Amino acid sequence: MRPRVDAWAAIREGSGLYWPEVVTTTDFMTPGQRADLEALQAQRYDTTRATVPALETLLYTPVQVLDHGFVRVVDYMGDDDAIVQAARVSYGRGTRRTSDDRGLIRYLMRHRHTTPFEMCEIKLHVKLPIFVARQWIRHRTANVNEYSARYSILDREFYTPSTEVIRSRSRPSRHDRGEQLSLRKAARVQELLREDAARSYLHYEELLNESPTGEPHHERRSGLARELARINLSVNFYTQWYWKTDLHNLLHFLSLRTDDDAQYEIRVYAEAILERIVKRWVPLVYEAYCYYRMNGAMLSEGALSVVRSLVAGRRAEAEALRRTSRISAREWNELLKTLDLGG
Amino acid sequence: MRPRVDAWAAIREGSGLYWPEVVTTTDFMTPGQRADLEALQAQRYDTTRATVPALETLLYTPVQVLDHGFVRVVDYMGDDDAIVQAARVSYGRGTRRTSDDRGLIRYLMRHRHTTPFEMCEIKLHVKLPIFVARQWIRHRTANVNEYSARYSILDREFYTPSTEVIRSRSRPSRHDRGEQLSLRKAARVQELLREDAARSYLHYEELLNESPTGEPHHERRSGLARELARINLSVNFYTQWYWKTDLHNLLHFLSLRTDDDAQYEIRVYAEAILERIVKRWVPLVYEAYCYYRMNGAMLSEGALSVVRSLVAGRRAEAEALRRTSRISAREWNELLKTLDLGG
Amino acid sequence: MRPRVDAWAAIREGSGLYWPEVVTTTDFMTPGQRADLEALQAQRYDTTRATVPALETLLYTPVQVLDHGFVRVVDYMGDDDAIVQAARVSYGRGTRRTSDDRGLIRYLMRHRHTTPFEMCEIKLHVKLPIFVARQWIRHRTANVNEYSARYSILDREFYTPSTEVIRSRSRPSRHDRGEQLSLRKAARVQELLREDAARSYLHYEELLNESPTGEPHHERRSGLARELARINLSVNFYTQWYWKTDLHNLLHFLSLRTDDDAQYEIRVYAEAILERIVKRWVPLVYEAYCYYRMNGAMLSEGALSVVRSLVAGRRAEAEALRRTSRISAREWNELLKTLDLGG
Amino acid sequence: MRPRVDAWAAIREGSGLYWPEVVTTTDFMTPGQRADLEALQAQRYDTTRATVPALETLLYTPVQVLDHGFVRVVDYMGDDDAIVQAARVSYGRGTRRTSDDRGLIRYLMRHRHTTPFEMCEIKLHVKLPIFVARQWIRHRTANVNEYSARYSILDREFYTPSTEVIRSRSRPSRHDRGEQLSLRKAARVQELLREDAARSYLHYEELLNESPTGEPHHERRSGLARELARINLSVNFYTQWYWKTDLHNLLHFLSLRTDDDAQYEIRVYAEAILERIVKRWVPLVYEAYCYYRMNGAMLSEGALSVVRSLVAGRRAEAEALRRTSRISAREWNELLKTLDLGG
Repeated sequence: MRPRVDAWAAIREGSGLYWPEVVTTTDFMTPGQRADLEALQAQRYDTTRATVPALETLLYTPVQVLDHGFVRVVDYMGDDDAIVQAARVSYGRGTRRTSDDRGLIRYLMRHRHTTPFEMCEIKLHVKLPIFVARQWIRHRTANVNEYSARYSILDREFYTPSTEVIRSRSRPSRHDRGEQLSLRKAARVQELLREDAARSYLHYEELLNESPTGEPHHERRSGLARELARINLSVNFYTQWYWKTDLHNLLHFLSLRTDDDAQYEIRVYAEAILERIVKRWVPLVYEAYCYYRMNGAMLSEGALSVVRSLVAGRRAEAEALRRTSRISAREWNELLKTLDLGG
Repeated sequence: MRPRVDAWAAIREGSGLYWPEVVTTTDFMTPGQRADLEALQAQRYDTTRATVPALETLLYTPVQVLDHGFVRVVDYMGDDDAIVQAARVSYGRGTRRTSDDRGLIRYLMRHRHTTPFEMCEIKLHVKLPIFVARQWIRHRTANVNEYSARYSILDREFYTPSTEVIRSRSRPSRHDRGEQLSLRKAARVQELLREDAARSYLHYEELLNESPTGEPHHERRSGLARELARINLSVNFYTQWYWKTDLHNLLHFLSLRTDDDAQYEIRVYAEAILERIVKRWVPLVYEAYCYYRMNGAMLSEGALSVVRSLVAGRRAEAEALRRTSRISAREWNELLKTLDLGG
Repeated sequence: MRPRVDAWAAIREGSGLYWPEVVTTTDFMTPGQRADLEALQAQRYDTTRATVPALETLLYTPVQVLDHGFVRVVDYMGDDDAIVQAARVSYGRGTRRTSDDRGLIRYLMRHRHTTPFEMCEIKLHVKLPIFVARQWIRHRTANVNEYSARYSILDREFYTPSTEVIRSRSRPSRHDRGEQLSLRKAARVQELLREDAARSYLHYEELLNESPTGEPHHERRSGLARELARINLSVNFYTQWYWKTDLHNLLHFLSLRTDDDAQYEIRVYAEAILERIVKRWVPLVYEAYCYYRMNGAMLSEGALSVVRSLVAGRRAEAEALRRTSRISAREWNELLKTLDLGG
Repeated sequence: MRPRVDAWAAIREGSGLYWPEVVTTTDFMTPGQRADLEALQAQRYDTTRATVPALETLLYTPVQVLDHGFVRVVDYMGDDDAIVQAARVSYGRGTRRTSDDRGLIRYLMRHRHTTPFEMCEIKLHVKLPIFVARQWIRHRTANVNEYSARYSILDREFYTPSTEVIRSRSRPSRHDRGEQLSLRKAARVQELLREDAARSYLHYEELLNESPTGEPHHERRSGLARELARINLSVNFYTQWYWKTDLHNLLHFLSLRTDDDAQYEIRVYAEAILERIVKRWVPLVYEAYCYYRMNGAMLSEGALSVVRSLVAGRRAEAEALRRTSRISAREWNELLKTLDLGG
């Protein structure tokens, strides 16, 4: 049950989490990478495939997430209309009006007819801390190529949380973040993280005894195998990968990872993908997804019986049902919130 | 949104569909098969693995479904407790009380923490009409071994619907079954289906020119390759397979296939699995599943706003919201039903 | 172990199977479908995505397979270069020469580094007999939307094998096709299949009591629900679907379905996809696939020891090894064939 | 192409890698964990399910891998016979002799009929360094529940490579390990790794400000959220998970991870699973797997043509083919080795 109407407000205010303005940036890129990017964006091909102009303009450009991470669209297949076509197993794009398409897409979303959404595919290039990658990879229905620290040398880039997101352990829930730490304590956290990461990287370089291009630092010494040297790095170091998935599985990923229960550091990736990319790519799907999933709520048998009592004006009964129908304290609070009854 | 509180009543009365009393039977088996079955049930092994006595008694025994079909449990792995163990990545079965386990399982179900449910696995032997198999196989996260009509000869067994389920096309929805046909018309349907199936099978045998054990009927003629002869059989012929899946994917399959939208002939398999097998195997999961999925309901953003108005006693506003919030006629009716407001 | 060097020769001559010249055709289409097709092909979009001109020219056009079936490319993502990019997790298309790309793709293929091949995706619209669809769907790592006979009315189109492929059951293997039947007997097979299919369809129409556009034939009678009427149709009737998969899984599908063991009727689809589509789409991958998979061979421990003896010129030892190393008769014959030693 | 006949010799000598004697141990366990383990092993249930006595004796017992890791079987489903049953879609265990079963299993393995092998399932509890877990998780067809560092506190356990496996970067290949470092240098590597891990853990504890049971170290300070504190730990820290997969996917995992190309630290897990667990669990499958996969070799089109020349005694031609058929230097060396011609 996720009673969220405005996801962005919830993130900025409701939960107190800090969401940096999403910007596209190429600042972090080397001149070579920037040249590659410009070459890709300059190329122009003729195609008869389904094409989404609004997404073409964003193609290849990194959308910044966290301090050194990004998401960029490398390729995509299909659009809103491709879903309609597949659902109808049709020969063409048809002459139906957009209003019909909207209706069909809403119908498919509502009735969990998920296969037509699998007919769209997207490929992203993502740069992300290792601990975020470890959560992300749990979503199995996707294709992944990760930068290999067995073959290559990792850059000296690690994630340091900003003061706004350095928070204490909340009680009673054991994993949520609670209050923001004082600026002094937050600075100490950042300092520890930075020092340890810097030292680890220094030792990583010592173990490798080679520059990124492969020349040994000390001619006479042999370096440690790369696959072994990297085990000294902490999970806040950045890795990167190509990640490709279909729209249905992407939405499932996003519904779990934009959830309040998700860790902040993966939520900002999920929100960036949803609000910057999906919204441009398949606007009708985005709308239906927000309406039926994001801003909808799953009510249990017990919650439904309470709602029925309330709708019938029988408040005392509703209160009694709370006890008899095994609604947990947390579920009860969520229900009140969902129903705008405080909580 | 599936406003079903008592699934069985809905099937028997609400939707007017006919659900035969589930019985276990070995009537259809050859003496050899029955001997195999008895040998399996007579074997006794010592194990330290998680074991469910209530399911052991049902092991290997066919539960009849439709006129010639069945489902039988061939093997299983895990129980309610195995889910708890996996969720805690624990070393043992622990000393927690059952009430804690129930709470954790409900928590996992409610929060869509699905991976612990994947730690239980079940293997079924199913006999089912080909057109049912074609719907069933769409659930991809499962392991399947089907009886091969390329290598073997299919038995002369086909599905004939009973009069209670021979129904007209309902309007406006295009696939639901509407009114029951008259007994005379239903008899004509059965006659046509039986005649065509019987003739197809006769021709199948003629094409094969061999008995099930492989001897040619006519010594001097060569039979058609089995893989080609079988293309003459209709999709109401029975096939059979071993089908194995984990509990999470099984529940997902059941939630879609016990739904009102599912075709009757696959629903009876899904109901048999849920009520006869899952309920015995993992009673705590069964309970949580019914509470949060089966008898719960997904409310959209629009439906939620209507509910909020109703709870606040603002009926006129609720009616107005219906128009402004794009709730379709069908969704509206379902909502009223969910809220016990007629519909 | 698949000792096939020239797949096409094997199909045409070696195995005696008949492979009709692949043609693209729009003959079977209704005027409306043809107009849809032409509209799709006429559309022109600008894109910066990876684009394959050789495949663009084939886009949307049906490639005929069997008597009424087809395969047509509806969309695709990526090209040879996209694989290289993903393998390197690179920022651009790079300035490497094609010879480097070829080398890398061969390396990836040889070492079973399969994930980069998953970075290309293709979406096909396929029309195929139900019994072929039943084999095809066993490949689970794909997305499918099938034309629904619950919602729609199936066309009167069924597969009748041509005389060249009407063959007897071969011995000792139980499923392969053996000798071609005499023309007289083949005609009888075709006659039976056609008559039964025609009668089934007639009864299907009677049961439905409606035209494809939904008008009842007899005003006063109610038709049977579509989902039930269709159970009278045989598995040689055509169905159609949108099928989408990634290149790695496509190649795996093709390696199993172009195999000598695959049924002729699915092999022709697999060959059409491989030779008409994959070859145009990703020529470097096609080349590497033929070299390492299609025309390569897997040798067992026993076969390897025989080969070592033969290479060392110890023929008697090789013969002795055949007995001691548990090589089956069929494996032995395949080995001789693989080594050009008769068999 | 993997020309390995005796995997164990290859590991111990051929490749120079060090393989510690596999032992089962409970030394590392807390008294509570040991009591849990003993309770599990003491329980005795009656079952009619397929049961493997040889594996029952190993059930729940940790097999040690690396310095602090282990693999232990928590549950299993099926045995050699279950594969045969599924392949035949049979009603019972049948009266076939073991020799028939062996033949069928070899046939299935050779012809890549993989689905019957999916009918067996195994559930393991594994403790492994994070960088090994990151490689392992790439195998997507499995079920996983990992110990959560968001909810729980990680133990102070990290992997330190033994001197035998501390090796230099080999040339020209970029990721293999080459020569063993001198004892002095190896000691320096271990020292660096230990110091950095120890310091990271100390800071982790400082950030948390709580004991493993949740009491704060300093009453007046609030600890950092667990999910954030753990980002300071390096990838050689141990994590643990429940991992469940079917036999087909397990063998695929093992074939890739026992390969010479796999990193040593994951290879020892794969070897332990293959030699200690699979061999006991499904001995006929183990035998067929070694014969057709492990000790077999995949020859390319070019390699095959070379072999044909050699078998025919035309050595000069073979040498010429090397040039014309695009066999890379590495492939050529492997071929010579496979054929016992040096290399």
